[in-house]
Amino acid sequence: MHKILVFNNVSMDGLFSDSDGGVGWAKRDNEELTEYVKQSRGDISTYMFGKTTYQMFAGFWPTPAGKAANPYFAKILTEGRKVVFSKSLKRADWENSVIEPKADATTIGRVRKSNNGDCLIFGSGTLVRDLTEKGLIDEYQLVLNPVILGSGRPLFSPLPKSVELQLLESKPFKNGTVLLRYQPLKLGER
Amino acid sequence: MHKILVFNNVSMDGLFSDSDGGVGWAKRDNEELTEYVKQSRGDISTYMFGKTTYQMFAGFWPTPAGKAANPYFAKILTEGRKVVFSKSLKRADWENSVIEPKADATTIGRVRKSNNGDCLIFGSGTLVRDLTEKGLIDEYQLVLNPVILGSGRPLFSPLPKSVELQLLESKPFKNGTVLLRYQPLKLGER
Repeated sequence: MHKILVFNNVSMDGLFSDSDGGVGWAKRDNEELTEYVKQSRGDISTYMFGKTTYQMFAGFWPTPAGKAANPYFAKILTEGRKVVFSKSLKRADWENSVIEPKADATTIGRVRKSNNGDCLIFGSGTLVRDLTEKGLIDEYQLVLNPVILGSGRPLFSPLPKSVELQLLESKPFKNGTVLLRYQPLKLGER
Repeated sequence: MHKILVFNNVSMDGLFSDSDGGVGWAKRDNEELTEYVKQSRGDISTYMFGKTTYQMFAGFWPTPAGKAANPYFAKILTEGRKVVFSKSLKRADWENSVIEPKADATTIGRVRKSNNGDCLIFGSGTLVRDLTEKGLIDEYQLVLNPVILGSGRPLFSPLPKSVELQLLESKPFKNGTVLLRYQPLKLGER
């Protein structure tokens, strides 16, 4: 069964963006992580986004600046199938994009079933929170950055109940980040 | 120079206590961590607390239940010098305790200077936040627990500005926790 994966940078205090909504504090100069992800991750066939991250990505990765910034990511993101969850978005012009109005179990099941590989969610805080609440995430791949932001937006809060996890891997990198891979413990496994 | 260390459990989403103020989610059945801490940590001569944690600890560790729960911690905590920072507390009856009204650079400097070893802060969220803001913490030893609490009290927020850290160590344990050791980057090192 293909998986729904979350990949995000977080601060040491669990924040996803700083008090200005910025993510400039995340250490993105990490060749080591890029190589590690390339080698260790299974095939990703679909990228899933909320509206905000989709629009940000669609305005950057297909452009010459995006291609120059990271040719590998620019290529895989542009060529991959993209699903953007939004009730308000009318058009999604980045190639291979479809809009889905509802991030529920039915839609996720349909996307998952029609895939040749795993689905990856980048950024998209609201979508991550919603799918976490619905128990629809199979694995979290979080890059813990060596910074206490002290204020900003939590990746998960608020959730009506806690989610127990199993640690799959922790891997430190030279730039001080730590990749943490977790899977939720399903009810029967607790 | 003796250090001021913070040692705390945090959830994967950076929370220090859950929405009921509880810490029952933290995995404390960790012999591996206890052994590791015993062997790797330098001499601790003083424990520093905020009022809430001090009162909780003073009501448990010197009792038979506390001694039965973890004889090692009961002994080192009871025998160690204890400083509780509080403006309102009138008495601190647990042996070797002193009350300090102000958690500022002068007091911390005095405590640090009169020590034979390092100072360790357990729990004490408000104290940790205040000393972090004042740049008076030398090292954070955080045990990252495999749980998304989703709501509760952040260990650090709100802080008026972010604190950049250097990762000293990350060590996973069999129970799914990860010990993360960080030191703040002082201004000159950034």
